[in-house]
Amino acid sequence: MSAASQARRLKGPEELEIVAFERGHFSSFSACGIPYWVSGDVPGRDALIARTPEEHRARSIDLRMRTEVTEIDVEGQRVRTRELPDGSGRDARSGPEHDSKADSGSGSGSGGTERWTSFDKLVVATGARPVRPPLPGIDAPGVHGVQTLDDGQALLDTLTGSGGGRAVVVGAGYIGVEMAEALLKRGYEVTVVHRDEEPMATLDPDMGRLVREAMTGMGITVVGGAAVSAIRTDGDGSARAVATDDAEYPADVVVLGIGVEPETGPARAAGLPVGAHGGLLTDRSMRVRGYENIWAGGDCVEVLDLISGAERHIALGTHANKHGQIIGANVAGGYATFPGVVGTAVSKVCELEIARTGLREKDAHRAGLQFVTATIESTNSAGYYPGAAPMTVKMLAERRTGRLLGAQIVGREGAAKRVDVAAVALTAGMSVEAMTMLDLGYAPPFSPVWDPVLVAARRATAVVRKAGA
Amino acid sequence: MSAASQARRLKGPEELEIVAFERGHFSSFSACGIPYWVSGDVPGRDALIARTPEEHRARSIDLRMRTEVTEIDVEGQRVRTRELPDGSGRDARSGPEHDSKADSGSGSGSGGTERWTSFDKLVVATGARPVRPPLPGIDAPGVHGVQTLDDGQALLDTLTGSGGGRAVVVGAGYIGVEMAEALLKRGYEVTVVHRDEEPMATLDPDMGRLVREAMTGMGITVVGGAAVSAIRTDGDGSARAVATDDAEYPADVVVLGIGVEPETGPARAAGLPVGAHGGLLTDRSMRVRGYENIWAGGDCVEVLDLISGAERHIALGTHANKHGQIIGANVAGGYATFPGVVGTAVSKVCELEIARTGLREKDAHRAGLQFVTATIESTNSAGYYPGAAPMTVKMLAERRTGRLLGAQIVGREGAAKRVDVAAVALTAGMSVEAMTMLDLGYAPPFSPVWDPVLVAARRATAVVRKAGA
Repeated sequence: MSAASQARRLKGPEELEIVAFERGHFSSFSACGIPYWVSGDVPGRDALIARTPEEHRARSIDLRMRTEVTEIDVEGQRVRTRELPDGSGRDARSGPEHDSKADSGSGSGSGGTERWTSFDKLVVATGARPVRPPLPGIDAPGVHGVQTLDDGQALLDTLTGSGGGRAVVVGAGYIGVEMAEALLKRGYEVTVVHRDEEPMATLDPDMGRLVREAMTGMGITVVGGAAVSAIRTDGDGSARAVATDDAEYPADVVVLGIGVEPETGPARAAGLPVGAHGGLLTDRSMRVRGYENIWAGGDCVEVLDLISGAERHIALGTHANKHGQIIGANVAGGYATFPGVVGTAVSKVCELEIARTGLREKDAHRAGLQFVTATIESTNSAGYYPGAAPMTVKMLAERRTGRLLGAQIVGREGAAKRVDVAAVALTAGMSVEAMTMLDLGYAPPFSPVWDPVLVAARRATAVVRKAGA
Repeated sequence: MSAASQARRLKGPEELEIVAFERGHFSSFSACGIPYWVSGDVPGRDALIARTPEEHRARSIDLRMRTEVTEIDVEGQRVRTRELPDGSGRDARSGPEHDSKADSGSGSGSGGTERWTSFDKLVVATGARPVRPPLPGIDAPGVHGVQTLDDGQALLDTLTGSGGGRAVVVGAGYIGVEMAEALLKRGYEVTVVHRDEEPMATLDPDMGRLVREAMTGMGITVVGGAAVSAIRTDGDGSARAVATDDAEYPADVVVLGIGVEPETGPARAAGLPVGAHGGLLTDRSMRVRGYENIWAGGDCVEVLDLISGAERHIALGTHANKHGQIIGANVAGGYATFPGVVGTAVSKVCELEIARTGLREKDAHRAGLQFVTATIESTNSAGYYPGAAPMTVKMLAERRTGRLLGAQIVGREGAAKRVDVAAVALTAGMSVEAMTMLDLGYAPPFSPVWDPVLVAARRATAVVRKAGA
């Protein structure tokens, strides 16, 4: 919808007809906001809806809700769609039917009306689907994903009836730790079960350890190195425990936070190129590689990691929105390109802030980069300022050149967004030595006289120098 | 002392003798912390002392307190010093006298023992002195500067006896607004009198207006465009009002926050080069221009503004500390350079956060740069996240090239340090268009899906494009 909106901004309805198909019940919403809705911080579902179908339609975007694209006919420049139950294709509030010129045929398949719609230009934005390992009991009532607003509502409906119970979160990535916070706030006894050595495996384990220690301090039970083998169910079939090879963790509610994978179904079936991580491959203008009139963006594509030089799959709304802008501009006959990512991500669990950008140690190894690391402790404000809290910053710098390769931060208020300094420095290809002289904002409420990022850069510079050639 | 410490880190006492002269009562303290000590946020003076004379001496730095350098003999490679009252040159706690080899002569002048001390290498770090216009009553009891710890103590001693009264702050720069907050917290009725159109003249007036409106909302009376003509005094000679050409503002306490100017006395007298702003001029290695063995840094020098290409005087601890590192390295036979500044500064007044970097409109004009501006409003977190608060970001971008020239931010929590993104982008010479694709940290508690800095960059990009060639 971001691509559609941007294209509409640049070309009016007389110049460009825009038809959008959405399989679900909602057109534009913040999936990232679901944990805060579950926690009670966000009062209701509607707050997470960025734009309703009616709002899109008011801007002359012919949005067909509950309509799934089942096939892409690349040669014939048309897509086959199927209407899903409880959707009329356009909802009752959308006003008089708009007889789209693009509707070139129709048929009837299983589950709803099928029809073909032709296109001059196609945008694939099919997103990602949650990883759902084929474990016994995984589909039992009481096992919740948190990918869609319907997922969130289903989880909330459960919680309303069972506050004060036991919750098990499977997975300790961003969604996992954010859901742990949410359930803690809802009065649950929370256990997080995950397979890696430390939680937040998007950090190096030495930084993940700090997250585990803080989570444990909040009263969250963190079980690492644990592969879930089954969800145990009650007599009535609903989830009652999460089982690993070694133990069983009783649960009134189970939340799955084990990541997502690109949803590329009809695009892949149509022969569009897919990379090692399962995402569609695009060129710089977000056009699908080798296709003149098909673009793809958001959680269904792979993106170029500017530091490793390799493709990655990163499902994150901020990238998806940028892709939408770029695709919309190009589809409307303009020109825009997506340079790639450096892999920045921030999160929090209660008061703890967590951030990373660039490469972890294992990413750098994999990319063939030799590096040194430096880790420092500092504070988020001048040490004497009330509420000054510790912050740990780790940096990776390339051997010899001293070029910044990555940064990770764990701390309290003001820790997470400091990673943006490293993100911009990575983008600019700065050395850690150049970073030591960055003119960052200083005042006692905001930083020690040497910002923690500068302290880390100084340490890393010293390590690079000591390592020599 | 930062230079001395860094030099000592690199060279032991057997290789390098270090003698330091300090005119005042304290060697290493945070002047920036004084407002928070006055406000009561910082419990006591000692919290602001970074390192005591004894700590410096324990690292074999021969620190002579209350000793003023009165003359620099460049040819003879020696400085003349004078001991000031209530200082023994080294305080009683410093242990047995160290008979420095550098002491090559002594004499006796007005006010204390005079002596000459020879040097191989000299570092000038004489700092800045508060601007104190020659107004009637300016030296009256009840008129306070806030430059030194002694100033802070004197002000605090006054407040203890007169809480609940009326305070007038002269000047509305960083110190002025921070002191306004401090005095407000101490229960005073606060009036800020300043000469510019809007407070925080380091911002453009349209952004300064937001600061004024917020300050007014906090109950601070802000009087702009007002030139102070006198401090009116009581029968007993103490300050009782601040007078401008048009009005009189009753005051139980008056605080001067009208900036500082470089303190270069003996250096200037010795013929060392001084720039248009009164600061010593140095080369890239912080060596005084034209002098092989004299370095200068901190508030007494001018620094290169990387964006305008001109020299500026910026009295800020974070620059002074960097200078110290660089001078220390060079004096110890190493190699380090200071690249210059982009002019970043952050501050807060109660909940309001204020930040700037790069050039204001008038700076850009003065530098011969043609530019466009863009101002946007956004929020510090996702709009639906509890406590989301407005943030205004203004950007200046060069005409044609779209290169970022400056950014200013006014908002609530999380506003100020966002300017660091712009500071790094300025250092890297990024265009606002390149900035729109920066991979900044996103999660609902920390940012909307488009960070306000990205939104501003997008707007600025559109304005640059619209302005054309």
